[in-house]
Amino acid sequence: MRTTSFASDNHAGVHPEIRAAILDADSGYAPAYGDDLVTAEAIRLLRKEFGPEVEVFMTFNGTGANVVGLQSMLRSFEAVVCAETAHINVDECGAPEKFAGIKLVDVATPDGRLTPAIIEAAFRGVGDPHHVQVKVVSITQSSELGTVYSLAEIRAITAWSHARGLLVHLDGARLADAAASLGLELGELGSSAGIDLMSFGGTKNGAMGAEAVIVLRPELASSLPFIRKQSMQLASKMRYISAQFVALLTDDLWRRNAMHANAMATRLAAGLAGADGVIDPVATRVLQSEFPFYVWDERTGQVRWMTSWSSTQSEVDEFIARIRTVSAGAIDG
Amino acid sequence: MRTTSFASDNHAGVHPEIRAAILDADSGYAPAYGDDLVTAEAIRLLRKEFGPEVEVFMTFNGTGANVVGLQSMLRSFEAVVCAETAHINVDECGAPEKFAGIKLVDVATPDGRLTPAIIEAAFRGVGDPHHVQVKVVSITQSSELGTVYSLAEIRAITAWSHARGLLVHLDGARLADAAASLGLELGELGSSAGIDLMSFGGTKNGAMGAEAVIVLRPELASSLPFIRKQSMQLASKMRYISAQFVALLTDDLWRRNAMHANAMATRLAAGLAGADGVIDPVATRVLQSEFPFYVWDERTGQVRWMTSWSSTQSEVDEFIARIRTVSAGAIDG
Amino acid sequence: MRTTSFASDNHAGVHPEIRAAILDADSGYAPAYGDDLVTAEAIRLLRKEFGPEVEVFMTFNGTGANVVGLQSMLRSFEAVVCAETAHINVDECGAPEKFAGIKLVDVATPDGRLTPAIIEAAFRGVGDPHHVQVKVVSITQSSELGTVYSLAEIRAITAWSHARGLLVHLDGARLADAAASLGLELGELGSSAGIDLMSFGGTKNGAMGAEAVIVLRPELASSLPFIRKQSMQLASKMRYISAQFVALLTDDLWRRNAMHANAMATRLAAGLAGADGVIDPVATRVLQSEFPFYVWDERTGQVRWMTSWSSTQSEVDEFIARIRTVSAGAIDG
Amino acid sequence: MRTTSFASDNHAGVHPEIRAAILDADSGYAPAYGDDLVTAEAIRLLRKEFGPEVEVFMTFNGTGANVVGLQSMLRSFEAVVCAETAHINVDECGAPEKFAGIKLVDVATPDGRLTPAIIEAAFRGVGDPHHVQVKVVSITQSSELGTVYSLAEIRAITAWSHARGLLVHLDGARLADAAASLGLELGELGSSAGIDLMSFGGTKNGAMGAEAVIVLRPELASSLPFIRKQSMQLASKMRYISAQFVALLTDDLWRRNAMHANAMATRLAAGLAGADGVIDPVATRVLQSEFPFYVWDERTGQVRWMTSWSSTQSEVDEFIARIRTVSAGAIDG
Repeated sequence: MRTTSFASDNHAGVHPEIRAAILDADSGYAPAYGDDLVTAEAIRLLRKEFGPEVEVFMTFNGTGANVVGLQSMLRSFEAVVCAETAHINVDECGAPEKFAGIKLVDVATPDGRLTPAIIEAAFRGVGDPHHVQVKVVSITQSSELGTVYSLAEIRAITAWSHARGLLVHLDGARLADAAASLGLELGELGSSAGIDLMSFGGTKNGAMGAEAVIVLRPELASSLPFIRKQSMQLASKMRYISAQFVALLTDDLWRRNAMHANAMATRLAAGLAGADGVIDPVATRVLQSEFPFYVWDERTGQVRWMTSWSSTQSEVDEFIARIRTVSAGAIDG
Repeated sequence: MRTTSFASDNHAGVHPEIRAAILDADSGYAPAYGDDLVTAEAIRLLRKEFGPEVEVFMTFNGTGANVVGLQSMLRSFEAVVCAETAHINVDECGAPEKFAGIKLVDVATPDGRLTPAIIEAAFRGVGDPHHVQVKVVSITQSSELGTVYSLAEIRAITAWSHARGLLVHLDGARLADAAASLGLELGELGSSAGIDLMSFGGTKNGAMGAEAVIVLRPELASSLPFIRKQSMQLASKMRYISAQFVALLTDDLWRRNAMHANAMATRLAAGLAGADGVIDPVATRVLQSEFPFYVWDERTGQVRWMTSWSSTQSEVDEFIARIRTVSAGAIDG
Repeated sequence: MRTTSFASDNHAGVHPEIRAAILDADSGYAPAYGDDLVTAEAIRLLRKEFGPEVEVFMTFNGTGANVVGLQSMLRSFEAVVCAETAHINVDECGAPEKFAGIKLVDVATPDGRLTPAIIEAAFRGVGDPHHVQVKVVSITQSSELGTVYSLAEIRAITAWSHARGLLVHLDGARLADAAASLGLELGELGSSAGIDLMSFGGTKNGAMGAEAVIVLRPELASSLPFIRKQSMQLASKMRYISAQFVALLTDDLWRRNAMHANAMATRLAAGLAGADGVIDPVATRVLQSEFPFYVWDERTGQVRWMTSWSSTQSEVDEFIARIRTVSAGAIDG
Repeated sequence: MRTTSFASDNHAGVHPEIRAAILDADSGYAPAYGDDLVTAEAIRLLRKEFGPEVEVFMTFNGTGANVVGLQSMLRSFEAVVCAETAHINVDECGAPEKFAGIKLVDVATPDGRLTPAIIEAAFRGVGDPHHVQVKVVSITQSSELGTVYSLAEIRAITAWSHARGLLVHLDGARLADAAASLGLELGELGSSAGIDLMSFGGTKNGAMGAEAVIVLRPELASSLPFIRKQSMQLASKMRYISAQFVALLTDDLWRRNAMHANAMATRLAAGLAGADGVIDPVATRVLQSEFPFYVWDERTGQVRWMTSWSSTQSEVDEFIARIRTVSAGAIDG
């Protein structure tokens, strides 16, 4: 497939500046497993964003970053409260349960976002050995439904959680999109918002494959070198992952990519304003044959259209035009 | 560090042909998670080597390939017999035990290689619920001590194992080196040798980061898509991993790289012929400051020197000269 | 505490006939781990109830029986659909997740009972490696809310499940109560209802501590000797567990105990007919100081009153009287 | 089988004083899960032996006590050094690996006992993420080979371990036998010997089934209520387990039983003094048909003969006579 995809930001290629950084890192010998200069530079840049005290552990993918990070926060009889739509709950094939040995206490939400009131309803059985003990609240920013927590909303969750001795995990596979959308720096969504540990994703932001666990509460860090290796997430030639973060954090590439992706999504939404909110299954299939995308809920026919750093105005406009034509055609037909 | 390293084949960069293949794959949109054309081509080429019936699952790293593959072969009460020096036993931070839930029954070997007689001594407690049940024999080719199993030696192990209902796993992180050394095709070390499932490594053979589980006994394959994802080894932008295999399997790059690395190792050994087999700790430290390498056994002072696709004759010759000088100096001093 | 308890059927002692059977088993030497004559007799009696082809594995407790049984039915990437009120979901401290490595997909129910329609809504993502794969449906008979599945209701679930390649697990910690209530034999709730594997509980039915995994689909049995031992559920002096089942299955003691417990529950309910369905927190505390019982839902003040084989008519009548007095007093006060 | 068994102390029945204590506990209602008066009394008596600060967690069996205890001492990337003959290594079907997720680093010993020098050889890779991190040393007292650590030998191990930040676990499935043999109080083998956590076994000492985790380092205790429940080792009607400890710790029953078992073993050994140390396989089979026992090593023909609290002088003498007759007969034949 070389056609324009609106299926996922994972369908986009690698941003040219990231590609250049990878090639730049590919020069001669370098120590393995993160003891190289490129990784040192990436960590320096991540600390500039997230705070000088953070510890950073590169991983291969987002599931890896989530599961590695959660393991440092939990023992097996402890539990994570998360939205029922959370990636850790529905898109990681049970990896948190298997590898951390924990239970996810998933709760319904109106739009993919937790609130203290929603979390509180799941905060039960404290001290009772028959029940798992809630220890971590996990939120996703941007959420899996495309919504974004405001800074105040995150702070309400972290304050509520810390008052009860709980830790807060943030799945930041699309943190760049959220920060760009909120007009914030990345670090403002980290320790200053009260987050204890997060996954920070580069892959959906234009990288080839680069994710990191950012430890904002330093005492969680000591076990992570071992957890990462045991979790099969320690890259031997780590410089090629680190180089991607160097590029993303140079000249605000992360923000440029995120703002572009956000703008293209806005353009797509605007271009369809006034259109029927529903397209029928026949139209969906016709469109999918031209522009790959996913049906998000097979029962309702809801579809997901996603833009990325690589989406162009003309691609979006062409897609809008086809949607309008096909929908109308389907209705007419 | 940009100095010449003899520490590990992981310290080398990416071979230019592999780099070119990665860049070539980076063209526009492509489906994620392996549904792309580059991955299809990589699988086609791997099947050309290993047999038309094999199933292939790309992973991020060698530990991932081993642990993903083993999970498909075992239930948690079953066990793996392996050499005590096996990578799965000493260099994966307990990942097999944690993720497959299994026991490794590790046994002493003279040179890193198992034999039917060695395995048999560990094959105990069959049918006794108090004991783990040996189900898999795992061998490493080339072994962690640099030795290579002949085809006859592998066949003896697989025949012995199959006769007892056991499966044989091969850790092929350096399979290319072994095949080149033996003058064999890759596939000759696979199903025709009786192996049931193997890890095949690209990273140490010149890749950026590319490993694969090769399933030679097809009935093991059905669970692997799920095991791979649950084990955090499913790459979203898989085309960039697959491209590396495409390059390695084009114009026998795997063999050219392996033969070069082997030749450089031979040159190093030949250049040191007649030298004292022992260097003292002071000399070791002086040498390490100029050419990174590992002390392999702190108690004996044994060191490991490793060449790779990127080692050059002049690097090896310069290293030989320094070893001779420093050793002599140390002796003199 | 030697006062009358309505807190749990776990608060009752051991029925005299079971006590006698334990003492009877305590005669001289006997092989350990189930190779004894008492265990052989218990298995013979259980096969008389559940069918000649069933395999039986004694365990120490109900959580053990559930987790041991489930492990034989599932691989770690597979999942269990259960009611959100299921014991495996809320009262086993995450043991299924930790030891089977699986996800429980818990669903809301009106009264603790699943239906095919409810299960179907959770049956998603088939074949998608990002999602756990539903493999088992688990129902509890009697349910944790005291409701009972009719035979037709179970058959509807097992037929629906088998048609989709799923297995059905039954948590029968209180199977005797259900069978007595339905006027059925135990075996009628087993393979003839389509169940594939069940836990059968003796402890709440008057035993000291005796549970069993009953394997109704024979091909699940081969791994269970090892799973039971690895799960720390293999008793060395098993004859003392088995003796309890011998007693329960002699002269229909299981049914006598269950009918008595059911009758006492009916008497309690009848005795409170017309009473206010709500008692206030003060009255609850006063009552609890005299007759131990649990508040079931701290938010609503809902309490659970439970009878057992050892509840007597006078105990129940005294309790009814006190409830009426204390409630009235609380209202008056 | 009602014949005299020398196969295992698990083949013996329940000592009359323990049987009486169980019956005594069976009086009316009692809270479940350890909130009963019998359990309180058992804990009081155990604290009298092991120290007022210890925490006690009853479990069902010895494997349960070991695996529950170890889980409180370790994270999954940490490791246990133990003898290769340790029960946790060879007789628990991989439960420690599966449930604690850890690696056991098993080492050869001359007689089932570790020493600091033996442990030190396995204490490697500290701080290296590729290696599991040794955190616990586990010793068995009496060992699986029937040997006993002196107090000085245990103290040498605990001092060595604590100096390196390691914890020491003691598998005390047969602690009573060791204490009786050494002429020590139970508590002298606990915290005063530097042990951090131990399993204490009642079953082999005359109980029906009663084991306990004794936590000597209090900070390990906080997680244990949850670990025990999650590990399926929390008994509902716990009073019947606790009653067994009450009996064992009343009037030194534990010591009386142990001294008797030890004396019978000594009598057996003395009665065979001068006899050939080897019996041939035919004689072994003849003897086994009359007196059950195990062949301990199928390759050497080594057998294990074990006495218990219930072995009588006449049983031992009869066994001695038969051994002498059958051995001679076999030789003659």
